[in-house]
Amino acid sequence: MLEARALTALREAGADEKSATATTRAMLHASRLGVDSHGIRLTSFYADSLRTGQVNANPVFKPHRTAAASAMLDADHGLGHAAAYAGMELACEIAKDSGIGAVGITHSTHYGAAGAYALAGAEAGFISLSTTNADSLVALHDGTARFHGTNPIAAAAPVPGQKPWLLDMATSAIPYNRILLFRSLQRELPPDVTADISGAPTRDPHLAEILTPLGGRDFGFKGAGLAGLVTILSAVLTGSTPDHLVVPMNPEDGNATRHDIGHFCLAIDPERFIGREGYDALITQYLAGLRASPGSAPDTPMLAPGDREWATMEEREMLGIPVDPTTAAFLKLI
Amino acid sequence: MLEARALTALREAGADEKSATATTRAMLHASRLGVDSHGIRLTSFYADSLRTGQVNANPVFKPHRTAAASAMLDADHGLGHAAAYAGMELACEIAKDSGIGAVGITHSTHYGAAGAYALAGAEAGFISLSTTNADSLVALHDGTARFHGTNPIAAAAPVPGQKPWLLDMATSAIPYNRILLFRSLQRELPPDVTADISGAPTRDPHLAEILTPLGGRDFGFKGAGLAGLVTILSAVLTGSTPDHLVVPMNPEDGNATRHDIGHFCLAIDPERFIGREGYDALITQYLAGLRASPGSAPDTPMLAPGDREWATMEEREMLGIPVDPTTAAFLKLI
Repeated sequence: MLEARALTALREAGADEKSATATTRAMLHASRLGVDSHGIRLTSFYADSLRTGQVNANPVFKPHRTAAASAMLDADHGLGHAAAYAGMELACEIAKDSGIGAVGITHSTHYGAAGAYALAGAEAGFISLSTTNADSLVALHDGTARFHGTNPIAAAAPVPGQKPWLLDMATSAIPYNRILLFRSLQRELPPDVTADISGAPTRDPHLAEILTPLGGRDFGFKGAGLAGLVTILSAVLTGSTPDHLVVPMNPEDGNATRHDIGHFCLAIDPERFIGREGYDALITQYLAGLRASPGSAPDTPMLAPGDREWATMEEREMLGIPVDPTTAAFLKLI
Repeated sequence: MLEARALTALREAGADEKSATATTRAMLHASRLGVDSHGIRLTSFYADSLRTGQVNANPVFKPHRTAAASAMLDADHGLGHAAAYAGMELACEIAKDSGIGAVGITHSTHYGAAGAYALAGAEAGFISLSTTNADSLVALHDGTARFHGTNPIAAAAPVPGQKPWLLDMATSAIPYNRILLFRSLQRELPPDVTADISGAPTRDPHLAEILTPLGGRDFGFKGAGLAGLVTILSAVLTGSTPDHLVVPMNPEDGNATRHDIGHFCLAIDPERFIGREGYDALITQYLAGLRASPGSAPDTPMLAPGDREWATMEEREMLGIPVDPTTAAFLKLI
């Protein structure tokens, strides 16, 4: 039902079939795994971006193999999801032949949860990485202005007989949506994660306008460095716009200037390194060791990246995906 | 002088020429750039490890191209530096042909500063990545025991007419050597970076035995996730030993059991993505924007990863590399 309504809403906003399908798939990935900030609630945002023309509703993709292990994909300013799934699929095909495959995606737009694409790669049997740059929201370490985007790093690895290992993290301490959530809850933010518009640290969600990089006051240079690595791979390498020059997607302003961000897809075939059998044994041994490692709550196993998300998915398969009232109204669910 | 004495000390401990040369080169990289924890002071540690036989003084490397873009290199339990330089060189050669190149190194040992190898790749014109796993010192998020190694991520990117962009970071909040330094200084550690042997947080350097992952109490799952990514790429993919099962290198105990860690090398040729000219223009524009971004200290430009290290290098080229008394005595400098 949710899927059908999201598809309809995107089609009605003009999206071609591949864009509507991929965007819905990526939003449902996020909603199923509990990443609600990037879930089905984004449908109206994407629909509005299509209607203002900032996002191309009928993009023509131009994948271009540049060498045995590399390719470029021009996303033609369409919704980023379709380009990112296509890019990861191509990276996996290349990796199958060449051991590793990298695809740079240029002229793209917001692609939702980075983990969706890394997961697609792991489900196909590859260790996978997906990164994207974004419009600036995050200060540099000791900086007082927005510079980097929240620039996520998503990585996934196949695990025999289990759900993949799955990491999907912003390189800022918290995502921007956390500020909005705390505003509506009237709750104080954690220390060291946001600043006001002048760059002064604040815990007041109504004053918070700038995110700080992962690592806080003492180690924020690490989060800022990782954000920079993401910009270099996603935008500089692919010929897209660096974060601080990206025109935000604010469809409510009617802005039709191209967003023009980039994504980077990497797939690695374990078959061409230690071999599948050796890889399967070692990833199983590593994760068994991790889950058996002692934690502060006795009798509660440690969680590997993704474990919490897979538990949420099981729960939501039984109880359904929670939909906020605004989104429910938009999707005509109520 | 420093270089000659380090070479001599390693040769006297039995190291073959390629091991002695590469290890000295990597230690001098760290000493020149101010990463003294991984600098020339490690000479006696490596010499002792060769003498106990835990490290093979005459390793035979077996690089093995597995596909158009991938290779494995068996380090034969030699000093990690020679294998890591050879692996990065091979990754660059592969990337030149195939757009991207990945080399998995197995059966290796401590390789010093990860940045040395990423830098070598960037100096050859490639965006480069070097990771290594290590024996366990770092707790999981909410964990109370050592599980991951300090598992660094080093990345570098060429910049036309400038020193490379260079990030070299442990995925723990602080490196283990920081504890030892604070012990000798009798100084309290920053909050949220270490725990005592039972896993309870402590700021007392004499009680600190476990490091906590980057991100602190609230966001340590990100540092732990990145450490896991490093283990998967460096050890699981390459058929080496996962961190929590690695036998430490403690030559003072006379332990001769193989260390058996792994490294991962990645090189990306910008020529096969946006092209060299486009890449050069964008990395220059990105870094100019970064350095001009406003910071808390007015009139002081923001630093890109590596900027502080390049400034230290200039300073040390004039003033020399500081050598602690123990190392100076070992190298017969005093």
